[in-house]
Amino acid sequence: MNPTIELQLNHRSIRRFKEQPLTREEVDLLVKVAASASTSSYMQACSIISITDPKLKHELHQIGAQAFGKQEYIRDNGHLFVFVADTARNAEIAEEQGQEPIYQGSADRFLAAVYDATIASQNLVVAAESLGMGVIYLGSILNDTQKVVELLQLPKYTFPVFALAVGYPDQTPDAKPRLPAAITHMENRYVPIRERKAELAEYDQQLSEYYQARGDNARAETFSHMATQYTRSQFAKRPDIAKVIKSQGFLGEI
Amino acid sequence: MNPTIELQLNHRSIRRFKEQPLTREEVDLLVKVAASASTSSYMQACSIISITDPKLKHELHQIGAQAFGKQEYIRDNGHLFVFVADTARNAEIAEEQGQEPIYQGSADRFLAAVYDATIASQNLVVAAESLGMGVIYLGSILNDTQKVVELLQLPKYTFPVFALAVGYPDQTPDAKPRLPAAITHMENRYVPIRERKAELAEYDQQLSEYYQARGDNARAETFSHMATQYTRSQFAKRPDIAKVIKSQGFLGEI
Repeated sequence: MNPTIELQLNHRSIRRFKEQPLTREEVDLLVKVAASASTSSYMQACSIISITDPKLKHELHQIGAQAFGKQEYIRDNGHLFVFVADTARNAEIAEEQGQEPIYQGSADRFLAAVYDATIASQNLVVAAESLGMGVIYLGSILNDTQKVVELLQLPKYTFPVFALAVGYPDQTPDAKPRLPAAITHMENRYVPIRERKAELAEYDQQLSEYYQARGDNARAETFSHMATQYTRSQFAKRPDIAKVIKSQGFLGEI
Repeated sequence: MNPTIELQLNHRSIRRFKEQPLTREEVDLLVKVAASASTSSYMQACSIISITDPKLKHELHQIGAQAFGKQEYIRDNGHLFVFVADTARNAEIAEEQGQEPIYQGSADRFLAAVYDATIASQNLVVAAESLGMGVIYLGSILNDTQKVVELLQLPKYTFPVFALAVGYPDQTPDAKPRLPAAITHMENRYVPIRERKAELAEYDQQLSEYYQARGDNARAETFSHMATQYTRSQFAKRPDIAKVIKSQGFLGEI
């Protein structure tokens, strides 16, 4: 154990930030840490867009709010980054040299760019938390991906993977218990959950107690119950994601 | 600045590890840190497979080696993790409760699982580096994705995103310069590289000098040149990735 790992084990999402904005220096440092992370084949296929225009920020927050209605963390206080999987930069550099960017839209490049952007984001998250800040990933911008593409003028061969709000925490939520390693960490082969029924039952019990201890009776539920949510039709939203991945030039071969 | 950020800015990939293996306790701690990271909608759609069987490890390394031939970092010394984007667990839990997992293969869930696995991996990376270990991401397992699926017995609704080798460094490579924030960090809208030609020229110059200072004349090249590599046909490999994404049950709607 060491301070870095202690920090990481202590991670929880922050949904309410103080009014104290990040300074320009803080933002620059966070972006620099994001860029220092590993990148697939050194292609650096990630761009980060800081949303500083209040109107634009509001519009992006509205996209998140429209589906779930109760995202109280959609506040103006956090600094809002949008992470972009970006093979457009390298495609443009190649075209400039007279080469066809024939491969930039492939599944291989799409995944590599998604990895680059996501790895960079999590590096930024750890750095932010080490500075006493808190973060929340906002996958909710994908509620209307096409709108995000238009608002941010995202060209072909780019895809907005998620947003990330970063600020000084104005709350101290509990860390939610995670699935035990006995379920998620396997050796040499994939182990289906039906071979880990006892461990799942124990985790369900633990999670149920966690919610009850929070006095959150409405959510005295188990992971097994929560895991079914994406089989229920009201969660079958975001029908346009696949369409936008394709219209942005990716995965044409699928 | 603080020790965590100093560590992150000091990141470089390690391609040669000492013979000292990770202890069981070290592996368990790293996996715990991975699980502590953010997870989309609390679905925890990530599994981690440790490859401890020497024969299996060799086979996975061969998949990486076959395309590039010279992956000297494909060594037996590092601990090899395979990260799996996994909506199969929750699909199975839902089916157990008599629900159809109608939504687990959607683009939305596929991306969320890829994010979960990638975020977890980068959290593990920072923890490993804080313990004096080094890492290398091995996207190269996707050279033959179907083979990986078979070797690890990966069921429908899972996808092996990449492997990660972790060990004690037996080399001290330089950190490679990254694209400047003037190019990668934008404000309120996407900025195409054609609007940042001067910054790119400067970075090309910097990278060229970096390679020359390393005495690596063979690689005295620029980012602009490297960025064209994925437009050249010899890099148009991995034609099966899209097919495997689909045959694993994902992105059927594209």
